[in-house]
Amino acid sequence: MNRRMSFFILGKILLIEALLMLPSVVVGLIYREYDAMLSFLPSIGILLTLGLLSRLLRPRDTAIYAKDGFVVVALAWILLSVFGAIPFVLSGAIPSYIDAFFEIVSGFTTTGATILSDVEALPKCLLFWRSFSHWIGGMGVLVFVLAVMPMSGDRTLHLMRAEVPGPTVGKLVPQMRKTARILYAVYAVMTVILVVFLLFGKMPLFDAICHAFGTAGTGGFSIRNAGIAFYDSAYIDVVISVFMILFGINFNLYYLILIGRVKEALRSEELRSFLLIALAATAAIFANTYHLYHSVGTTLRHAFFQVSSIISTTGYASVDFANVWPLFSQGVLVLLTVIGACAGSTAGGLKVGRIGLLCKSAFQGVRKAIHPRAVTPVRYEGKPVDTAVIHSTLVYFVLYVLIICASTLLLLLDVGDFTTALTAELTCINNVGPGLSAVGPMENFGFFHGAAKLLLSLNMLIGRLEIFPMIVLFSPSVWRKNVN
Amino acid sequence: MNRRMSFFILGKILLIEALLMLPSVVVGLIYREYDAMLSFLPSIGILLTLGLLSRLLRPRDTAIYAKDGFVVVALAWILLSVFGAIPFVLSGAIPSYIDAFFEIVSGFTTTGATILSDVEALPKCLLFWRSFSHWIGGMGVLVFVLAVMPMSGDRTLHLMRAEVPGPTVGKLVPQMRKTARILYAVYAVMTVILVVFLLFGKMPLFDAICHAFGTAGTGGFSIRNAGIAFYDSAYIDVVISVFMILFGINFNLYYLILIGRVKEALRSEELRSFLLIALAATAAIFANTYHLYHSVGTTLRHAFFQVSSIISTTGYASVDFANVWPLFSQGVLVLLTVIGACAGSTAGGLKVGRIGLLCKSAFQGVRKAIHPRAVTPVRYEGKPVDTAVIHSTLVYFVLYVLIICASTLLLLLDVGDFTTALTAELTCINNVGPGLSAVGPMENFGFFHGAAKLLLSLNMLIGRLEIFPMIVLFSPSVWRKNVN
Repeated sequence: MNRRMSFFILGKILLIEALLMLPSVVVGLIYREYDAMLSFLPSIGILLTLGLLSRLLRPRDTAIYAKDGFVVVALAWILLSVFGAIPFVLSGAIPSYIDAFFEIVSGFTTTGATILSDVEALPKCLLFWRSFSHWIGGMGVLVFVLAVMPMSGDRTLHLMRAEVPGPTVGKLVPQMRKTARILYAVYAVMTVILVVFLLFGKMPLFDAICHAFGTAGTGGFSIRNAGIAFYDSAYIDVVISVFMILFGINFNLYYLILIGRVKEALRSEELRSFLLIALAATAAIFANTYHLYHSVGTTLRHAFFQVSSIISTTGYASVDFANVWPLFSQGVLVLLTVIGACAGSTAGGLKVGRIGLLCKSAFQGVRKAIHPRAVTPVRYEGKPVDTAVIHSTLVYFVLYVLIICASTLLLLLDVGDFTTALTAELTCINNVGPGLSAVGPMENFGFFHGAAKLLLSLNMLIGRLEIFPMIVLFSPSVWRKNVN
Repeated sequence: MNRRMSFFILGKILLIEALLMLPSVVVGLIYREYDAMLSFLPSIGILLTLGLLSRLLRPRDTAIYAKDGFVVVALAWILLSVFGAIPFVLSGAIPSYIDAFFEIVSGFTTTGATILSDVEALPKCLLFWRSFSHWIGGMGVLVFVLAVMPMSGDRTLHLMRAEVPGPTVGKLVPQMRKTARILYAVYAVMTVILVVFLLFGKMPLFDAICHAFGTAGTGGFSIRNAGIAFYDSAYIDVVISVFMILFGINFNLYYLILIGRVKEALRSEELRSFLLIALAATAAIFANTYHLYHSVGTTLRHAFFQVSSIISTTGYASVDFANVWPLFSQGVLVLLTVIGACAGSTAGGLKVGRIGLLCKSAFQGVRKAIHPRAVTPVRYEGKPVDTAVIHSTLVYFVLYVLIICASTLLLLLDVGDFTTALTAELTCINNVGPGLSAVGPMENFGFFHGAAKLLLSLNMLIGRLEIFPMIVLFSPSVWRKNVN
């Protein structure tokens, strides 16, 4: 692999993280939290030093291979977390480094699982950093980097491929940097609109900004112990529900809408499937929980909020579904955890597009059993899908299930029941946040042992980066010299 | 489809079931259980009538299509169960027909999940019928039928393909009938040897025969409420452990050994993986449960018994692992439930061979991510595997997971916890028998509602017939006239 070039890119990313820590410092200054604010400075110092040192490495050969792309992406996310965790420890807000690492990985991967039992005790600048990490992670640090870095065309493609979630059936517009900037602008504008909506609901500005970050990144960190339920407002619930869905939609569709191709955007098969699944899940939970609320409005509000939150892999909760709702509704949410939202959004999970391809391949298999000679290719978004794409989607699913089985088995060494182990694993690898039982929406992940927290952090990264970068990082063959 | 020919074959199968009920009648005569014995006669009467009527349909066109094969196999297993359940109801042993249907489906599919809380209350002739159904189901009723039916070559191939478990990488010897007879003979001889071994352990003859049926079919019905633990004998535990493993091995390997190709048989990759998994699981559970027994011998005995029982999908238990063992060991058993034993054995589960192909495809996917241009086909049993086989294995896995998710979700409507729903589903679709929590090895399935029992019965059939026949049966296109 091209180590010089890889280090060069990583250095740039570290510099950007130093920059991204500044808003938190400003928040600390505004709220006069000088001690907590100071805890950011050592991190910024280290990041600047390492970042500037890497500038000296300016490589002659700027070619980068597919596997280099994977390795750089994986290392970038790990390093961002390694340094991003430091302020929590130095400020004393999260004394254990492993806990802080778990928390910031959960932030950058937009998972939203927390080890904190009392978030309200944190200084505002750390709460801001925590929520801001969702916003950074949401759009993918590398998409952001792409928009800023003066690199053109081909070389960035591999990075992009490793980063952008989901099987991309449709293609992004050719000019990478331009696209990245447009997507980033859409993301920022939608976040601002959400903040305005929340302010209308009488949410304080700081709360509105943090929760907008959590919603936009489909993360789920709240700055209130009771989460969104704290505000007890139907208006806020509905606004956040709608925006969680919006941030779960493929951003390419917003791009299409912006350039006037609205019809094309609305014809998207993945979009329709996504909305249909959300609708069906809401209806199922509505029917299953109506007896709890005896009100169409309240039942619908909670059903839609939870469905929107889990399918978009955000993880906010308006009710303690793990304790209050019937098992069937909980099961629907677990299924949504796995499904996730659209490819090309800020959401995690398997993605609706991938689920669509898996189901269609399965149906094709049945058709083939009935009519062995019939040749009917799998079609998605109106086009026949290449068998290589189908194959890699199937393989992705196998890897996904294998990782879940292995991780859940290991977690059983550290928990009191199966449901906790399985849903902790599912909620982490799918970047959702809450699970059931001991990791329900009103609980936290603090009780896990250090090793389990690291395993779950690894799973969050595996899920966020769509498996391959993290596995490639651990493949010995990648680290041998002069082998492509 | 060729309906006349399908009815003709089904009629023959019904006649054979009438024949297979006779030993139970004889047992009833021996033990002077005249009332219970009489409850078999109406079934035998109906089976003979329908079977003989179908003889009048002798078709001119004996060609049979792939989908006809699936439909006939699926209908055969359903009809065998529909009529096989009647004696339980008529004798009053199991008053509810749905319960009796669940019990006999569990028997024929060699699952061994029971709705009975007190099996010892049953007349011996019904206990015999229950255990005998494992033995019939184990080798596959259709393989049996094949050996007896005067049909040659091609036409039977489709039936065979629908019946024989697992992806058959190696091929059976060409002459179907001859092979079926040889396999059947191996099966019978091994069963007799097991009976002899059990008699040496001072197990009464009737008990030995019934438990040999349960072991040979990898079923798991016992005629004792406490199961094998009733005999409290290390010797019996070890004998049954070893035989459960033996019945989980691909019968083609026994055929190879019989014709002197011993080395070839022992080189089998699937066999080696199977034994390795069993060994690793035993070691893991040994380490995890040693603190419970403080004795190498006892710990090993129970660890090996449970591993052998679950990986062979038999389902006998020497300890109440769902209540006594740590969660990790329970998790290992759940994983073994899914893995199952070798293709071409009497076991259920995904099969070691299929798991091998899935894992190798996954690793190939990772290799391809690192070296996009490298072409390295997946190899199994020393040979490159056709991409069509890989694809259908991957698709099989997707269907398998989809069915598990959908069924578990529905079961949540009827149970008190997630673990019960998930492990009930897994133990049924993999034809094992016990699960965890409310369906643990010392519990039973009696508490489920009728609809849930039917759903679980369907899952047992789906698992036993490797998914396709049951799905094809419910495909509308199969039932349209003149469409291939």
